[in-house]
Amino acid sequence: MAFDAYWASRTSLIEEERSLRRDTAYIANLTESEKKAEEIIRKIRATEAKTIWSVEHEEIPALFPGMEFLTARKLIEETQLFKVLRKMPKGGLLHAHFDATVDTEVLFCIALKHPAIHVRAPGPLAADTASRSPPEFRALPVSQFGIAADIASSDYVGGTWIPLREARDRCSLGTEVFDDWVIGSMRINPTEAYKTHNSVTKIWQKFLSTFVVSKGLILFKPVYEEYVYEFLRSSIEDGIMYVEARINFRFKTMIGDDGEDNVDHAQWVEIFGQVTDRIMQELKEQGREDEFYGARIIYTAVRFISKKELEWYLEDCIALKQKFPHIIAGFDLVGDENVQHPLIYYAEPLLRFKERTKELGLDIPFIFHAGETLGDGDHVDQNLFDAILLGTKRIGHGFSMAKHPLLMKICRERGIPLEVCPISNEILRLTSSMPMHPLPIFFNNGVPIALSSDDPAVFGNLILSYDYYQVLVSSEVSGLITLAVTARDSIQFSTLEDSEKQELLQIWERRWKAFVEEICTLTP
Amino acid sequence: MAFDAYWASRTSLIEEERSLRRDTAYIANLTESEKKAEEIIRKIRATEAKTIWSVEHEEIPALFPGMEFLTARKLIEETQLFKVLRKMPKGGLLHAHFDATVDTEVLFCIALKHPAIHVRAPGPLAADTASRSPPEFRALPVSQFGIAADIASSDYVGGTWIPLREARDRCSLGTEVFDDWVIGSMRINPTEAYKTHNSVTKIWQKFLSTFVVSKGLILFKPVYEEYVYEFLRSSIEDGIMYVEARINFRFKTMIGDDGEDNVDHAQWVEIFGQVTDRIMQELKEQGREDEFYGARIIYTAVRFISKKELEWYLEDCIALKQKFPHIIAGFDLVGDENVQHPLIYYAEPLLRFKERTKELGLDIPFIFHAGETLGDGDHVDQNLFDAILLGTKRIGHGFSMAKHPLLMKICRERGIPLEVCPISNEILRLTSSMPMHPLPIFFNNGVPIALSSDDPAVFGNLILSYDYYQVLVSSEVSGLITLAVTARDSIQFSTLEDSEKQELLQIWERRWKAFVEEICTLTP
Repeated sequence: MAFDAYWASRTSLIEEERSLRRDTAYIANLTESEKKAEEIIRKIRATEAKTIWSVEHEEIPALFPGMEFLTARKLIEETQLFKVLRKMPKGGLLHAHFDATVDTEVLFCIALKHPAIHVRAPGPLAADTASRSPPEFRALPVSQFGIAADIASSDYVGGTWIPLREARDRCSLGTEVFDDWVIGSMRINPTEAYKTHNSVTKIWQKFLSTFVVSKGLILFKPVYEEYVYEFLRSSIEDGIMYVEARINFRFKTMIGDDGEDNVDHAQWVEIFGQVTDRIMQELKEQGREDEFYGARIIYTAVRFISKKELEWYLEDCIALKQKFPHIIAGFDLVGDENVQHPLIYYAEPLLRFKERTKELGLDIPFIFHAGETLGDGDHVDQNLFDAILLGTKRIGHGFSMAKHPLLMKICRERGIPLEVCPISNEILRLTSSMPMHPLPIFFNNGVPIALSSDDPAVFGNLILSYDYYQVLVSSEVSGLITLAVTARDSIQFSTLEDSEKQELLQIWERRWKAFVEEICTLTP
Repeated sequence: MAFDAYWASRTSLIEEERSLRRDTAYIANLTESEKKAEEIIRKIRATEAKTIWSVEHEEIPALFPGMEFLTARKLIEETQLFKVLRKMPKGGLLHAHFDATVDTEVLFCIALKHPAIHVRAPGPLAADTASRSPPEFRALPVSQFGIAADIASSDYVGGTWIPLREARDRCSLGTEVFDDWVIGSMRINPTEAYKTHNSVTKIWQKFLSTFVVSKGLILFKPVYEEYVYEFLRSSIEDGIMYVEARINFRFKTMIGDDGEDNVDHAQWVEIFGQVTDRIMQELKEQGREDEFYGARIIYTAVRFISKKELEWYLEDCIALKQKFPHIIAGFDLVGDENVQHPLIYYAEPLLRFKERTKELGLDIPFIFHAGETLGDGDHVDQNLFDAILLGTKRIGHGFSMAKHPLLMKICRERGIPLEVCPISNEILRLTSSMPMHPLPIFFNNGVPIALSSDDPAVFGNLILSYDYYQVLVSSEVSGLITLAVTARDSIQFSTLEDSEKQELLQIWERRWKAFVEEICTLTP
């Protein structure tokens, strides 16, 4: 075979495989500006791969594009590529756990404003970081307010509530130590992710512990209101135009203004809706209505509950959907798949729920977490089969989907996207770095993708741009247009009505065009 | 949908996907003993997952099955599962680089016996390990023998050859330091793999440096002869029944008994054949002829050579094949794919070679390395397209194949196996641990697999049982039978003649049956 014939057959084989990719059709019809922007982005990427990611670094032994996020974050922030991505219109944020979406430092500042919030620990705060237990927070009614005390003093009686502000001011180890203790208990640091807790099992222990801490602050109505606002505000600033937040309804009430545990789920949803409306009104007044289309809630229960308990939550979800049809977007089960009940355990109540919502004329799609695991053929990996058979609208993570050619074909054909959370997967040790992540497998199999940040407050990926960055630098075939297609898909595969999707897509198009033009002015 | 109907559709979907797997047909026809053995192995695996891989360890922060090999090796050796796997008949070893197949300590001992072997360094051996350059070795003719000296003394003049034995004896830092220096320069240690060189680029620098050191010992005819013997002997001990070793013919000669650089490639191959015959004769005399079927050579050149130079090597390969038709098994290009020439660079001479061997009536299949990379859509990843289009008989590594649904389909349909080297991939940082390895993807796509050890002397996976172990403990769906199928495939996809394959398969069956019966006597 002569070389020309060889080259022709090679080109054709590569094209045949690429035809499955969702960006292929889009790439075939690029505008001149899009072509130019893509080229500029690729040039910046190639340059920075050398100037930033291939140099010797004093503190980091081995640099490479897409490396461990917590080690690389500062370097990422310095790159031109990241600065460009910050401005990209990102469509919808479809996978984020509400109680881990606001910067822990911001949450802490909000909490400090509220005299009702108290802190306690099992014993005096130790000077030695390794011996510290995490703090516990709770808003108390005025009648039960504690008195100022030094939580680090040997006189401190474990379990005694101290008003948060006073506890911080009086801490004899200093406010800095106090702040590190509080913030560190709600975040995963690089030493934990990459050394002391460097396995899926171990890092999940730390991960779950952060929620126990932050819940004491978030489940207090005045903080909750500010938290919703801050979550949406920071998302909008990051180019996110629409949100479907997973809220964990595990606790049946939160603490109200009066310090009593009496704010029910309907009020949670109502406040969420009110804050969303307020922020949209503010944007409108500023002529920025193109920036945000709204926010909805995916109702989530935790997968350690019994079948009986699940029935309660499903009924609760139905009641909320009936009351707030435009806010409740779907239903999901969350938690560590590796150790908690698989979907098949709940199949019966879930199947009944489908029947019942059908009878009631309610549209509450399942949007299941599934396959967030390294398991191969175990019950966790098999959650993917159940998610699909139970009719999930999207799949949360689906990390393990790369192992399933038939399921990927089904996702491609039926339009079931994966909500892929690259940095989350890396920090939770499903992959050690982005170049090892299965995302290219999903792309090459034509599975629709919505990139998401999962638990940004815990992982430190506080803007989705970090995830976009990690994806962009870890591939040669994927580029700016690939990201654009995922952003479009995050709208396409949202729970919005078709007409709403069209409207939002048009807004996205306008912002995308402006973004592309801005890139075209750059000198790479 | 009632639960029963749901369960039926679930079972059927899982079965449909599993139908692609190569172990599925085998599993459908198991003997009672095989069923029992599989069950016993699964029980041992499940038990040890808890008793060994889920406990707190004093020195290792996070244990899990399939974790980093260099950290886990000692624990692996203690397991019952590993002890069982040591005895498994493993079929053919299809991917091993000859010059990294013998334990470096054994190689060092062999070298110490030969007074001709000298050592030198760029300067005195430093007390501080970080400042040490690797040693250089060379066999010298008697007329050039060096004199005994202390290589660690400040008087040592860099570049001066010292007889190896004397250099070791006189080393003022002690023989232990000297030995660590020599051995450490031919091996990757855990600190290098998991800390200081924790990226593909960095670890390859260390990896390649080990070959520069060991070549000075191996490319000396008397050592080479012993090395071939030791390689085959230790392989046989590990249950390997047949070998296709990749020998790097980069250097056109090796040093002969007389210390002169004059032993040509024909002699390399001749000696390899003689030692193979000798070892087979010895086994026969011991009534152990079932244990070994023979060894062949895959001719390899390095992928940094020019097209012109490649033509010389291709001609050389043809000449050797004509002279030793039963020893030369195929042709390959080796080296770091990420930084050296892609296959497409050599397409023209390779296409001509195919024509020429056809004309000459020679069967010299390509058995290309391809896709040993984390690259996505770059020229390295694309080597997979070229390997297949150039008609490769097998693919060395094919790590990146997981990204290519169409190519996996071609491999499945045309019977192109991947020579998968799990521990090599992990130590060379393509994957951080076995549960992240794409092997389950290959299995689920029905791609034939031959498990291999690649460069065991450098990685410390000196027996293939380590690789078998890491595969077995990192999956729930794969089991003993899956390993059996890969062992069979390593025979099926060897370069042996069909009749030879049948004969070897029959021998394997006999040994497999005995192995299964032995497992059946175990109490898990």
